[in-house]
Amino acid sequence: MKVTVLSGGVGGARFTRGLRALLPDADITVVANTGDDLWLHGVRVCPDLDTLLYTLGGAVHEDQGWGRRDESRRVSDDLAAYGLGWDWFTLGDLDLATHLARTELLRAGLPLSQVMARLSERWQPGVRLLPMTDDEVETHVVLADGRELHFEEWWVRHRATLPAARFVQTDLASATPAPGVLDALAGADVVVLPPSNPVVSVGTILAIPGIRDAVRATAAPVVGISPVIGGAPVRGMADVCLTAIGVETSALAVARHYGHRPDGILDAWLVDERDADAADALRADGWAAHAVPTLMTDVPTTARIAAEALALVGRVP
Amino acid sequence: MKVTVLSGGVGGARFTRGLRALLPDADITVVANTGDDLWLHGVRVCPDLDTLLYTLGGAVHEDQGWGRRDESRRVSDDLAAYGLGWDWFTLGDLDLATHLARTELLRAGLPLSQVMARLSERWQPGVRLLPMTDDEVETHVVLADGRELHFEEWWVRHRATLPAARFVQTDLASATPAPGVLDALAGADVVVLPPSNPVVSVGTILAIPGIRDAVRATAAPVVGISPVIGGAPVRGMADVCLTAIGVETSALAVARHYGHRPDGILDAWLVDERDADAADALRADGWAAHAVPTLMTDVPTTARIAAEALALVGRVP
Repeated sequence: MKVTVLSGGVGGARFTRGLRALLPDADITVVANTGDDLWLHGVRVCPDLDTLLYTLGGAVHEDQGWGRRDESRRVSDDLAAYGLGWDWFTLGDLDLATHLARTELLRAGLPLSQVMARLSERWQPGVRLLPMTDDEVETHVVLADGRELHFEEWWVRHRATLPAARFVQTDLASATPAPGVLDALAGADVVVLPPSNPVVSVGTILAIPGIRDAVRATAAPVVGISPVIGGAPVRGMADVCLTAIGVETSALAVARHYGHRPDGILDAWLVDERDADAADALRADGWAAHAVPTLMTDVPTTARIAAEALALVGRVP
Repeated sequence: MKVTVLSGGVGGARFTRGLRALLPDADITVVANTGDDLWLHGVRVCPDLDTLLYTLGGAVHEDQGWGRRDESRRVSDDLAAYGLGWDWFTLGDLDLATHLARTELLRAGLPLSQVMARLSERWQPGVRLLPMTDDEVETHVVLADGRELHFEEWWVRHRATLPAARFVQTDLASATPAPGVLDALAGADVVVLPPSNPVVSVGTILAIPGIRDAVRATAAPVVGISPVIGGAPVRGMADVCLTAIGVETSALAVARHYGHRPDGILDAWLVDERDADAADALRADGWAAHAVPTLMTDVPTTARIAAEALALVGRVP
């Protein structure tokens, strides 16, 4: 079975880990958001790709959800003494090794997709890990007062507390999907949207010219798992992002924001048992929808959630 | 008093620390070799400039002579797992903070001379620290078998054991002295060559178009301290470099290699007491020369050596 996942960071990585446990022999491709990527102190940082690498490679800081286990901040602490700013952005020592390896390969001329293949040789994530694009597309936040910040500055430094008017992606028009992305969508047996941020993770992936159309056009069914449970994001501050783009923070509203094919991108939507009414409403509108426990508390539980999602579109594992 | 020093790494840094102790109110400019600089894992490493920064900033690993005190290798050790090579080059965690700060500023468009001024704000070296050039000039070693290596690969990885045919500098013809270098030579009250490697440290500085002529032309006296004592380099493997360019490893031969002005660049040469015969021979040839203990065992001793050097050209402190 060929499965293609459109993923952000922590939620997508944890879901994919469960999916991999469910389908150890499947051919899984993860298309990751790179809109949060940034050049920091001269090195290229890719938050979502690295969360996927570490989670699937067994090295993630489990409680935190991102970064390396047994991390330290020797370099960061010393770097702060130079007073160059961005000292609120955690650049762990072990994480920095990844950034240095990536930067060396990028500077040698490799596109990010090939760089990630090279880094995957170490971590053996058990999936094909693709950036959404090899181009440098960055998500910026336009504030209510007109200022524009890199997403990470708004998200990490300001904890998403500055009122956001909208999200924009830099250099989007000229960006193209990374090699393999469109084929992975066209050739999939099933496409999955894990419980990632619908606005700045999955939304950014879909914004790369050609990707949304490829999801709409694929012969494979497309199923999503709601990142919203009982009116609140399971993790992170997705509610702030949803509010900024005028979407209610509810399992139902997120499904309708994605939309049903052919106009939208989904065929099916898996919600938490607390949102059974959302599943009912969607079914009444012709969706495949189901309500089950969707908290990814551990890998076996997550594998069961993945199984429910696949079953919803007739891809019973 | 305005003093300009043409410096390599450890020897030049230790000498300058003594000079600064001797002349706390002097205006000291250090022009540093940057031929050993390299891009490594995407960050810019400047071995000699950093040895000067750390030594004069009170942070150097005193026994080692270079790098930071209380250094660790958390990042390096993890980076090695990516198998990208150059894992023999020490990239300490604290040192890496400097490389990241520098790389960020370089990527922001600052020339290296301005970057070093910015980094000096933290370390307060008490001297003006200038790179010989803002251009990327690298010293490469051409081996007897025709292969060409970056100097650091030959020096650090192979411990200078591969037979060297000659040293070349990349992109030398188009390189220009960094802003301030020529003025520091023309406006000096005295120019000092500390006991640095005459071939790949001072020799590289002098190879930058315009610098050798500026040393020849300055109205200031030029005095050097021999890096060779009793037929062997005080530190490092300068003998291998000297042999490669056909110069005997002796205090006398190094002086004659530099040459006396106007054809050469020196007026005076300070040798160790063990090389009193070299001083005699030079004096017979019209040089100012003197033999005193020149081992830089501690800062007060080094300050006395600096005083002897200045006295030799009538600049009695």
